[in-house]
This record gives sequence, structure tokens and C-alpha cells, in this order.
Amino acid sequence: MFRATCNTRDFKKVINATSNLVDEICFEVDENGIKASAMDPSHVALVSMEMPKDVFEEYEGDIQDIGIDLEALKKIIARGRGDEKLILDLDTEKNKLNVTFKSNVTRKFSIALYDVSSSNLKVPDIEYPNSVSIKAGAFVEALKDAELVNDHITLKIDEDKFIIYSKGDLNQSETVFDNSIEDDDNALAEFNMGEASRSTFNLAYLKDLTKSTAAEDLLKIYLGSDMPVKIEYEVSGSKLVFLLAPRIES
Amino acid sequence: MFRATCNTRDFKKVINATSNLVDEICFEVDENGIKASAMDPSHVALVSMEMPKDVFEEYEGDIQDIGIDLEALKKIIARGRGDEKLILDLDTEKNKLNVTFKSNVTRKFSIALYDVSSSNLKVPDIEYPNSVSIKAGAFVEALKDAELVNDHITLKIDEDKFIIYSKGDLNQSETVFDNSIEDDDNALAEFNMGEASRSTFNLAYLKDLTKSTAAEDLLKIYLGSDMPVKIEYEVSGSKLVFLLAPRIES
Amino acid sequence: MFRATCNTRDFKKVINATSNLVDEICFEVDENGIKASAMDPSHVALVSMEMPKDVFEEYEGDIQDIGIDLEALKKIIARGRGDEKLILDLDTEKNKLNVTFKSNVTRKFSIALYDVSSSNLKVPDIEYPNSVSIKAGAFVEALKDAELVNDHITLKIDEDKFIIYSKGDLNQSETVFDNSIEDDDNALAEFNMGEASRSTFNLAYLKDLTKSTAAEDLLKIYLGSDMPVKIEYEVSGSKLVFLLAPRIES
Repeated sequence: MFRATCNTRDFKKVINATSNLVDEICFEVDENGIKASAMDPSHVALVSMEMPKDVFEEYEGDIQDIGIDLEALKKIIARGRGDEKLILDLDTEKNKLNVTFKSNVTRKFSIALYDVSSSNLKVPDIEYPNSVSIKAGAFVEALKDAELVNDHITLKIDEDKFIIYSKGDLNQSETVFDNSIEDDDNALAEFNMGEASRSTFNLAYLKDLTKSTAAEDLLKIYLGSDMPVKIEYEVSGSKLVFLLAPRIES
Repeated sequence: MFRATCNTRDFKKVINATSNLVDEICFEVDENGIKASAMDPSHVALVSMEMPKDVFEEYEGDIQDIGIDLEALKKIIARGRGDEKLILDLDTEKNKLNVTFKSNVTRKFSIALYDVSSSNLKVPDIEYPNSVSIKAGAFVEALKDAELVNDHITLKIDEDKFIIYSKGDLNQSETVFDNSIEDDDNALAEFNMGEASRSTFNLAYLKDLTKSTAAEDLLKIYLGSDMPVKIEYEVSGSKLVFLLAPRIES
Repeated sequence: MFRATCNTRDFKKVINATSNLVDEICFEVDENGIKASAMDPSHVALVSMEMPKDVFEEYEGDIQDIGIDLEALKKIIARGRGDEKLILDLDTEKNKLNVTFKSNVTRKFSIALYDVSSSNLKVPDIEYPNSVSIKAGAFVEALKDAELVNDHITLKIDEDKFIIYSKGDLNQSETVFDNSIEDDDNALAEFNMGEASRSTFNLAYLKDLTKSTAAEDLLKIYLGSDMPVKIEYEVSGSKLVFLLAPRIES
């Protein structure tokens, strides 16, 4: 059995963040909560989410895999108001997941389950030389700047600076977050540098990864030279991890 | 002769509501006000509107038919600000309807009249076993929920419940308004049930019918099994009635 | 050398106003400021802008021509926040113009220069019989009204009235600004009539010319019969002049 109740706003955020990159996913349910991870169709990015049972108001779950059409779930979740109660409820007989919104009106949706079994994908345990914590808003703005000149982007760590850099045939764009400058409204909350490094990534993927963040969310970004970038953030107790392979510059 | 003055906001609402379903209409003018009714091009829905002379600041009208291109009128009316005075004025010589907006600036539009004569359509006088009064906002939200899973929708009355239900190949959606539950912010203002009934309708038409309602408008909905649904509402003294034929389920 | 610092908001307005009509332009820089003028590709409209050195916080400039791809500059400028400091800085070695936004984060763009030399176009010195000053908002609304019925528009001056008039095959539209009517919120700030006159213009150009104005900006409009219309306005010390050739009615 599986039945969980939470507020709509938080669940919406987690589902939206996940569904930007993948179309279907398998909820691995057990007594401790829901986990899921999936690669995007072109196997360049990995998404992993963890909703421990603490983030739910009520939670009961036996070990099982629930295959979900993320597009369908996202559309349904979008119909919920942030202040409504959300009830997830597995109907094993009809092989459907019921999604109910409760406020003064009861609205109930049923989604047919997908035949997707758990991928047992785990986020690989990589040692990174560098990490920064940065406000999502500032990072996303830098991506938009870079987008004006090219469709890929270089993330650099060097001498107290985190640099987001892009170069087109004609024009170029550069955003510098300088850790040595004191600033009240500092976008850079943490800066841990082991060695200077740079890696280049597909810009569209980075935008998808960060599309669902709020401006004040803190992104933890792990970086090394020609290594995948790892981006982590939390949404009211749920954990989201993204891994994006670098573009090897020829 | 025909000359009428009113506020732009109210006239805009009536015209928009009407023009969602039909493209041309004939204003049947007489000393008591303006009436008009028309069927949509596919003859599935009937629209009827009544603007009694009381809703106008000034009103003078002799018996006559004024054929209107609703698309053109709607675009012109959209250019008026809600707080402007609106003057309708028939120029029988040039065969045009003048629409003037008056605030600190005078803006005058002339629309060529259509050769549409009165259809003498009346809303048929049907006895309905059930009726509900419901806030337009809640009803429109339920239609949007239903739209996620199919393009038609079932309206059901049963045991103190008004249910809006839709079923697709895979997923389904259901909104339940329960009259037996007390609620401060009750969307269901009235519930009169004679016999349990259900009818299925084209969702796109129902959306068009209710597109111009404000969230707090009260819709009076008349329902029976495999009967047309009748939806009535008022806009500052003007009366709008819509009738939509059911989809006969095979 | 060329280096200038100003606030992003004002520079954005000047560039947007200019770029609505032309795609590339040559900044004629000297010690007194930046000037530029260009004709639109079809040679119907002339745009001229003047940013005297006083509108910059810091300004240093030797005589030179800087050829700019306005589309690229506009996109980059759009990325700046109104409250950021904007630094323009010519890199003569790399033949690029650097555009830097400074707030708590430094963001730097480089644009390759175009090989456009100064056109030495000047706004011709025409004597006009009439001029009006009008709030941009009211003028733009009148253009939108006119757009409903046709794609050209007639500007008339007659007996204390400034009239914006448009006539289609079926419908017509007319906005009258009456100088003889006292009005607290008068859109017409000035009215100087020498002789009654009327000229007809392409509506799309007039819309482009006034697209970047704020509702409260005062437009000075110079008019004569079958003469180009001249429209002037100021943006925080910078001067914009547009000239649009009339459409000769056959």
C-alpha cells in the first residue's frame, strides 16, 4: 500500500524540477519515503530526488515501484492550488495513482501507471576539488547572459572567483562572482577552492536543471576540470541532485 | 432612432460573453431595451442576451433590427476603458452604428451594419428536474481539470452532490461539490434536486460559454438526463442565457 | 579612446527607441557626447539621437565612429537591471565595444564592431505651420484605435482640434483632442496652429516610432499638409528626433 498527504506547493516544486529533464520516472516507495532517479533521454544528465517521510503530513508505504508518466503528473499537479492539501493514493487493483486536492471542494484525478521499474541508478560518488554555494537567481541570470552569445557555457573556478563565461563568433559574455569582495547581498554564500578548474556544458541542460528554482534557493555546485557538474538543492526537506556531463572541447 | 448611453465596463462584459459563441447577431431594439439571440454556427449552442433600458443611463429606441458583426464590435469595445462613458448611436442614413467613448478625449468608431434580420429565436421553455447555483470561478476551474483528460465532460446530480466528471483513455478527473458539507466559502450557493441525472457535453463549448464570467458571478445551471444544459447569469442588470445540447453517448 | 558610465535605465530607453526602426547605426563620438542618426531600411523614416556628455556620470571620448549592430546591443542592454551601473568601453585593439553591468556582481559583454561609418545624416531644418505637445500615452492609444480599421492614418489640425483619423472599407475610427475644452488631465499640453493641415502616414512606422515612450512622456509633433511629420522627445537629457515621410494619397 501507498498513501501520502502533503501540501501542494512543495510537491509541485519537486515534481516540476524533476520533470524538466525526464518524461517518465519510477517512484521507489518504502517505509522511509519516496526516492526516484532517472537519466534524460540522451543520457547526458542524471536527476535524483528524495522525499523522506518527514516531509509528508501523513505517510504509509510498503516497498514498491510506481511508474509515473511525469508529463501527465505535472499537468495534474499544476491544477492544484498551493494552499490545498494533496493526497497521493495507490489503487493497486485498477493500477492507478489517485491524486486528490482537498480544500472546500474535492478534486480527484486518476493516472494510469507506467510499466517502468526501478532503474537503481545512483548518483555516483565523485570527489570534487571545488564547490560553491550560490543563490539560484544570480546563477540563472548568468545563464541568460551567456545565452545571448552561444549555446554552451564555461564554468571556471580561479583565484577566489567563480566565473560563468560564454564566447560566440562575434560577441562574448562573462559573469564574475568575486569571493574576495565583501557584499551585503552576496550571491556567493560559500566558496571552496581546491584547484583552478574549468569545464564546458550544454547551456540548454543547465537551464532545464535550474528552471524550477526560486531566486533565493541556495544551489550547491561541485566543479572540477572536465568533470560532470553536480548541482544540489533542497525544497522544504526534499533533496534534488542533478549531474550534467561536460562537453569535451575539441 | 436608437441612441443609448451606458458605462463601458458592463457593455463590454455582455458583448464579450455573447461573442464567444457567435460571430454575428441582430440587436432587436425597441422602447424597452435591447434583446438578441443567436445560435452558434454548428447549431449546438444558443445564446440569448437581454439589456433592459434600465441598465442604460440614457436610452431611446424605436422598434428595429440592427445587424452587428460581433467580431468588429468586440475589438472596438475592447479599446474602451472601463471608466469611460459609452454612446451607441445609429446612423440610419449611412447605415452605420457609431460607438463613441467619452472621457477627457472623445473617440468615435463607426461600424457598417450587417444585413442580418432578427431570427426570432427564443430560449425554449423546458422544465428541468434539477438546478444548482454555483460560483463561476469554481465551475470554470472544474472545467479546466476535466480538460486534462478528455474533450467532453459529464455533469451529474446525485445524492446532495453536483459532480463534474471526465474520463480519458488513461486518466480521469472528478470534481465533487457536496451540498451536505457546510462551508464558509461555499462555491455551491443553491442545490435543487428532483431526480438523479447525468448528461455529457462538449467541453470546448462549455468553456466558451463561461469564458467571460467573473469568479464571483453566480451561474444558475439547469440539468436533466440527456437534456440540454441551461446556464444563466446576470451582468449588472443584463441577463445572459446559454443553452447547450448534450452529446448523446453511444 | 572612448569610455562612458551611466545608469542602465536611461541608456536602455534611448537604445530601444532607436532600434525600433533601424538595425545598425554609427555612434559619432566626440568630447561632447554621442550622436547618431540613421534611416530605416526603406528610407521612409529618419531617426536621430543625441546623448550629450552631461547625461553620463563619467565621460571621455575622442573623435571617432563606432559601428554598432543595434539588435545585438539591444539584447545585451535588455539584460541589465535599471539600477545597475552601465560602462561602455571601446577596445580599439580587438575592435570591440565592452558593455559592463556593475552591481554586487560584475557582468561583462563584448560586441564586435560593425564596419559602418558615419552617415552624416542630419534632420533637415523644415519650417512647420503647426505643432502640438501631447502625452505619449494618449497618442499611442489613438494609434491603437486607428489600427482596428486600417493600416494608415491621417493626422489633422483644424480649428483648435488635433484629430487622429482612420477609415477602412467598412469601419472608421477618430480621436479628437479638443484644445478649447479645459481639462485637468489634459493630454494636449500645447497647441500651435498656423494653418489647417492634414497628412496621412503608414501606421506601422508611427507605432515603431513611439513604441518606447512612457505614457507620461511629452511628444512634440510638428505637422503640415503632405509634409513629413517630426516627432521629438527627451529621455533624461538625451534627445530623440524622428521624421516620417507622408503617404501621398492618390
